[in-house]
Amino acid sequence: MQAVTIKDIFRNTEAYLNKNISISGWVRTVRVSKSFGFIEVNDGSFFKNLQVVFEENLPNFKEVASLTLSSAITVEGILLASPGAKQAFELKAANIAIAGLSQADYPLQKKRHTFEYLRTIAHLRPRTNTFSAVFRVRSVLSYAIHKFFQERGFVYVHTPIITGSDAEGAGEMFRVTTLDFNNLPRDEKGDIDFSKDFFGKETNLTVSGQLEVETYCMAFKKVYTFGPTFRAENSNTPRHAAEFWMIEPEIAFADLNDNMNLAEDMLKYVISYVLENAPEEMEFFNAFIDNTLFAKLDNVINSQFEHITYTKAIEILEQAKEKFEYPVGWGLDLKTEHERYITEKYFKKPVFIINYPKEIKAFYMRMNDDNKTVAAMDLLVPGVGEIIGGSQREERLEILEQRMRELGLKEEDYWWYLDIRKYGGTKHAGFGLGLERLLMYITGMSNIRDVVAFPRTVKSADF
Amino acid sequence: MQAVTIKDIFRNTEAYLNKNISISGWVRTVRVSKSFGFIEVNDGSFFKNLQVVFEENLPNFKEVASLTLSSAITVEGILLASPGAKQAFELKAANIAIAGLSQADYPLQKKRHTFEYLRTIAHLRPRTNTFSAVFRVRSVLSYAIHKFFQERGFVYVHTPIITGSDAEGAGEMFRVTTLDFNNLPRDEKGDIDFSKDFFGKETNLTVSGQLEVETYCMAFKKVYTFGPTFRAENSNTPRHAAEFWMIEPEIAFADLNDNMNLAEDMLKYVISYVLENAPEEMEFFNAFIDNTLFAKLDNVINSQFEHITYTKAIEILEQAKEKFEYPVGWGLDLKTEHERYITEKYFKKPVFIINYPKEIKAFYMRMNDDNKTVAAMDLLVPGVGEIIGGSQREERLEILEQRMRELGLKEEDYWWYLDIRKYGGTKHAGFGLGLERLLMYITGMSNIRDVVAFPRTVKSADF
Repeated sequence: MQAVTIKDIFRNTEAYLNKNISISGWVRTVRVSKSFGFIEVNDGSFFKNLQVVFEENLPNFKEVASLTLSSAITVEGILLASPGAKQAFELKAANIAIAGLSQADYPLQKKRHTFEYLRTIAHLRPRTNTFSAVFRVRSVLSYAIHKFFQERGFVYVHTPIITGSDAEGAGEMFRVTTLDFNNLPRDEKGDIDFSKDFFGKETNLTVSGQLEVETYCMAFKKVYTFGPTFRAENSNTPRHAAEFWMIEPEIAFADLNDNMNLAEDMLKYVISYVLENAPEEMEFFNAFIDNTLFAKLDNVINSQFEHITYTKAIEILEQAKEKFEYPVGWGLDLKTEHERYITEKYFKKPVFIINYPKEIKAFYMRMNDDNKTVAAMDLLVPGVGEIIGGSQREERLEILEQRMRELGLKEEDYWWYLDIRKYGGTKHAGFGLGLERLLMYITGMSNIRDVVAFPRTVKSADF
Repeated sequence: MQAVTIKDIFRNTEAYLNKNISISGWVRTVRVSKSFGFIEVNDGSFFKNLQVVFEENLPNFKEVASLTLSSAITVEGILLASPGAKQAFELKAANIAIAGLSQADYPLQKKRHTFEYLRTIAHLRPRTNTFSAVFRVRSVLSYAIHKFFQERGFVYVHTPIITGSDAEGAGEMFRVTTLDFNNLPRDEKGDIDFSKDFFGKETNLTVSGQLEVETYCMAFKKVYTFGPTFRAENSNTPRHAAEFWMIEPEIAFADLNDNMNLAEDMLKYVISYVLENAPEEMEFFNAFIDNTLFAKLDNVINSQFEHITYTKAIEILEQAKEKFEYPVGWGLDLKTEHERYITEKYFKKPVFIINYPKEIKAFYMRMNDDNKTVAAMDLLVPGVGEIIGGSQREERLEILEQRMRELGLKEEDYWWYLDIRKYGGTKHAGFGLGLERLLMYITGMSNIRDVVAFPRTVKSADF
């Protein structure tokens, strides 16, 4: 008796037809008439269920007929073609062993549940169609990202999660400590004495691995991070989580154009990979979550991405007939409504906007010759707006130091970052991509809480 | 002029011989005589350097001749065979562009540096042979782990980093907070009011994703985590870091034997993958770091792993002629000296020890029929001792609840973990593998600080 997965059966049906096989999985539905019944079984290997048919000659027919939802079973039997029926084949059970009987109060009964309710049972929701699809696609997408970079010779770097530097200053941070709150050590001035903390200093959770990975970029030329990052922002929106995963590639001997090419190649590669490797899940999303999904993703895969400057983008927005909620003008940051106008209505495809005013971008971005803009890039996609942000980095020591002085950043906090410019620094560039934002885009799911296994948001860290 | 990587040149030499090519990289050494010179260039794509030869007809011969170490250059020229010489080919430069000149006080001059010193310049050490090899192998190994699980249909799950439950209780934890230490909120009893903290409760950094991933195992059958975990242990040893990466697979409809088979297959696969995909790096480690390395790894790949019970292990130790520092006896935990005796001297190959006394193992491990031991497994390997720890999990609700009561664990803290037993829970098993421990084993590096890009240890969180 060969133990097989339901994925095997669907993908290589011919190999198993009329053979004795065994499958193990969980009951999704049971329908029984007097002398026979059907069970839809899902074994986690595949989005779809296998139909099992059983008859009253089963020694435990009664127990099987009254199986509760989500009970674990192992079925032995013969795989038969069922021509004309809704499904092309079914497993005719010779034996059904009950491996784990669900209690009758199983919370996921057949009726539809709201996503809000399902968040309260995040430990059970991957058993539903929607979340089974979301979290398999999350896995496939994560692998596609690694595969893309590894096949191109990038080195995966684990930048630190606990950081002693608020280097990027990209938002509010979570403090990491082992100090006893009821007995905080104080120095002679009465300030908290962080020299007594675990690391001997103040430490926080990282907001980005970029500065650290730049140092590895100067050794390996092509590197990337893929790890969790954190923001202690008090933003209770469908798009913000306190803990999320980021991918940050960095390439040396490379400028903003190389960076845009890399971002475009990566995005096309990973979307294509997911469409090819999770076709049933993607069909489901397109049918039940967002029926513009395939059109949207095809447009990304098949477009040549547009490239315009920030200055041009402002012109386009100023000439638009659209009423915007937020003001438009050179020097002001673009809001989502502006970004969406440009990518959805004006160009109708993905657009890179480059060369932003230095005032609205980070200190490490490379100063352009106009001395007013920096070599930043944001990639906008229809339906979302910004999905990737990046830049060419300032590799010129004096200009970087001057910029840091202007912004009041202390050189001693960045000594190692500056070293990279002193010792063989060369032009380099990189970008950041939020895994969850991309996953929302690819699945059509509209709340970040529904693409993270156990989401961490303001006032919520359950499980 | 084709831009190529040094890896391309070494792997497909024939394709580039006598061709005009261009490479970009960093100067490792320069040797100059009057009218010509040699530069060893490393471009990060490959462990080995490419030799560039240049002559005084170069317009910038003087600048090139005085290039400082680690300067970034782009070389155009023709790749020529150099028969009889130390290297099989060299790049005869037609043009050398200096892309970034290093300052003369570059800390990594030609002399040997101690690993201790190199830790103080962790941002520069990947430019040395040893750390270039370590961190490329770390990347290759990480990918091999993903590849192994993905090819076998496992779903990658990102379990939370910030956790509201001290569920595993596997050690001291780091607190995560946004409370203001100078103004801690207190409730009416005078206790810290954690409802005012970011998540509305006490939160910590995870020590393991196991309990969470078990819930996903009951949906996908085969799952794994791969992410950072944390221990706030005050252990200043070469093998302990406060932040490290763990891999935790979990399989359903599976028992301890399936778990041991998975661990053995995985270990053999990833070691073989690294040997095949980083051969130059592994040669280097075997030559300069640990010359028993290949023998040790071959022994892992080619052995059928041994399986013994804890009770048998105690017998072996009691009969050993060896003097042990720590006592041996049924009920006592095994120390590294005991583990190493069993795997190195007694069996001379990897050994699984199973069925440990319940008192020295975690509450979630499955009780054996003897009611004294649990279905735990530790995998010991020669040269290290324990490298993997795992177990079959207790899937029987009443027995798990009883065990939790015995240990004083509160059911309400584990409601979702218990739910998994109520609703279609079935036999399942899994294990944990520390990435850094495995990397130390594969590279022969003996200090965990030398296999983590920016290590976090007691009193140390630099960069």
